[in-house]
Amino acid sequence: MTGLELPPSLGVYGNQKIAEDIISRIWGKRGVFTCTVANTRTSTIPGVSEAGDTPELTMFTGPADAELLVSGKTTCMKGIPINPGGIPTPATLTKAALDLSGMPYYIVNGGCEIKPYVPYFDMGGECGERITTGHAVKNVKEIYEKGYMLGEMLARAYDYVIISESCAGGTTTALGVLTAMGVLKENLVSSSSPNNPKELKSKVVAEGLAAAGIEPGDLADDPLRAIECVGDPMMPANIGILCGAAKSVPVIVGGGTQMAAVIAGAVKLHPECVGNFFQGTTRWLMNDPNSSMKKIMDCISADVPIVYVNVDYSGSPYEGLQAYEWGFIKEGVGCGGSSVGAIIGTAGKITCKDLEDQVHRIYEKIMGL
Amino acid sequence: MTGLELPPSLGVYGNQKIAEDIISRIWGKRGVFTCTVANTRTSTIPGVSEAGDTPELTMFTGPADAELLVSGKTTCMKGIPINPGGIPTPATLTKAALDLSGMPYYIVNGGCEIKPYVPYFDMGGECGERITTGHAVKNVKEIYEKGYMLGEMLARAYDYVIISESCAGGTTTALGVLTAMGVLKENLVSSSSPNNPKELKSKVVAEGLAAAGIEPGDLADDPLRAIECVGDPMMPANIGILCGAAKSVPVIVGGGTQMAAVIAGAVKLHPECVGNFFQGTTRWLMNDPNSSMKKIMDCISADVPIVYVNVDYSGSPYEGLQAYEWGFIKEGVGCGGSSVGAIIGTAGKITCKDLEDQVHRIYEKIMGL
Repeated sequence: MTGLELPPSLGVYGNQKIAEDIISRIWGKRGVFTCTVANTRTSTIPGVSEAGDTPELTMFTGPADAELLVSGKTTCMKGIPINPGGIPTPATLTKAALDLSGMPYYIVNGGCEIKPYVPYFDMGGECGERITTGHAVKNVKEIYEKGYMLGEMLARAYDYVIISESCAGGTTTALGVLTAMGVLKENLVSSSSPNNPKELKSKVVAEGLAAAGIEPGDLADDPLRAIECVGDPMMPANIGILCGAAKSVPVIVGGGTQMAAVIAGAVKLHPECVGNFFQGTTRWLMNDPNSSMKKIMDCISADVPIVYVNVDYSGSPYEGLQAYEWGFIKEGVGCGGSSVGAIIGTAGKITCKDLEDQVHRIYEKIMGL
Repeated sequence: MTGLELPPSLGVYGNQKIAEDIISRIWGKRGVFTCTVANTRTSTIPGVSEAGDTPELTMFTGPADAELLVSGKTTCMKGIPINPGGIPTPATLTKAALDLSGMPYYIVNGGCEIKPYVPYFDMGGECGERITTGHAVKNVKEIYEKGYMLGEMLARAYDYVIISESCAGGTTTALGVLTAMGVLKENLVSSSSPNNPKELKSKVVAEGLAAAGIEPGDLADDPLRAIECVGDPMMPANIGILCGAAKSVPVIVGGGTQMAAVIAGAVKLHPECVGNFFQGTTRWLMNDPNSSMKKIMDCISADVPIVYVNVDYSGSPYEGLQAYEWGFIKEGVGCGGSSVGAIIGTAGKITCKDLEDQVHRIYEKIMGL
């Protein structure tokens, strides 16, 4: 690709030059998608997470998303992960992007209480505790080191690597880690509900920091320790994959504000990777009035651009999907990153219209419509 | 490739037509190598397995081989897996084939007591019991089903798939399953020692069958049940990967007589896969006077050819490697399958001489020579 002209399906925020350089290097090339699923009991604190019909069901969301991606159905729970009101998991869009692009994909288990009934890369992690305990994640170093090896292995086989997450409660743990690292001084993280429970999240984070005996900013240079205290098991796996892969091939960090903690951790541990990765997300997240991915990224690095996909569900015949336009869901399961990757990997052949149509087919099949 | 003329590095036994058809379809194409590691406590029965310096150390062999392949060093034990006398693991040849070909590779954990310190695909399996108990493997169906999904996922991403194993005690469990299925009526399986403890292995198998309350041949139509009784956890994972992949891409079954149980199981469960896979092994195994892969294969199917690599260590300056020419080791960790795959995948560019030279470099590095 010379004289890069982005298709209208994609938009860029931040360092345009780095974004265009990376995109031009992987345009029409062969990528791999990974989704790291994990549990943190933080999601069961009533009110924190809407990524599940009830606080208890949030624990099934990550594992069920993994099953949905691999086998098209769920085994660990009945039905598919939904938010209250029946809004379907963004895995529907991820699956559309993978279907249309033919991109290979793998599940990574960062640490789950519920084991997904699919093959996954094990990272030696366990389910995370509530961050209010101040000791949220065990084996952080092991998870990170295995993630790093996995990143190297994937970079050996593909031209670029997409990482992503499904971990309910993950915006709260992200706020925890970003606060412990001193990256954020205000609560800018997102929610899968348009009614972002900001006060509750800030309170949970403050409790966690107090329980760990740390002040905001104390762990500026130690992201792995910050994760140990107030993070979740998805984070060290993805920081590892990102750092292990980005030293040799470009990486797309798929996801919303949950992945900000991953980006901040990677930038701190391996600053030399900056310039070889960008965030891949959705216009829903970029336009969210109740959070600010842009401001968060400005706090992390001026050299990690954001590339977003302009998928639009306002013309959908299904209310569950229209709800994405009303501020529900917005991101998750790498729906933005996989879409961005599918468009780039097919040299722009896949359009937003193609993705929307495929989401409808998937949604109809799942719902038996 | 038209008018296939095999390079002198490779030899074929059995159905030449099928072998040539498969090879011509993957000549110069892009494959992936997998090694499934597992433990069975059968290997700790004194005298059964020499894949380890002592019966206890045999439990570390599979996991340490996985670590050696991925990170070039071992974490779960000191030094590398050896047979008594200091003969190094065949993973040295596997690593040479992977290094030279640049082929991507993944570790699969069929069920290990010792967890390898590397990323691996988890199959939900556990360490196998001694087959003398008559209930050797738990979760066989789950391991098989997850293997099948993994086979499908790999076939999506690569032109062909290589499967293999590192599981000490695996020729004894193979004899168990092949006897329970009625495929073998005599003990034709191999050993990593030139002094194959045939009587002991037959006795252990007879005990296992008696404990399970089955007669030879009783489980002709139920390989998964045979594995449950007298197999090991490597088997259902590899049968699954083989069947899941071979319905769409060719598969190379890397390994010796241990893999005969995998082939027999796959042929029974998915006979339609026959014609889309062959065994990949070494001339050491093919020439073994104390076992007969040829006879075993004749008992399983006339349509599963064997392709072997003509690697020869007789000119090696190192006694540990020369020992391969005296009947030690012969196979394991997919050393034959990965070599065959490396030669085919590079359209014959890699020769036996290249592999031998690279093995020397790896051996010298490991031994600090």
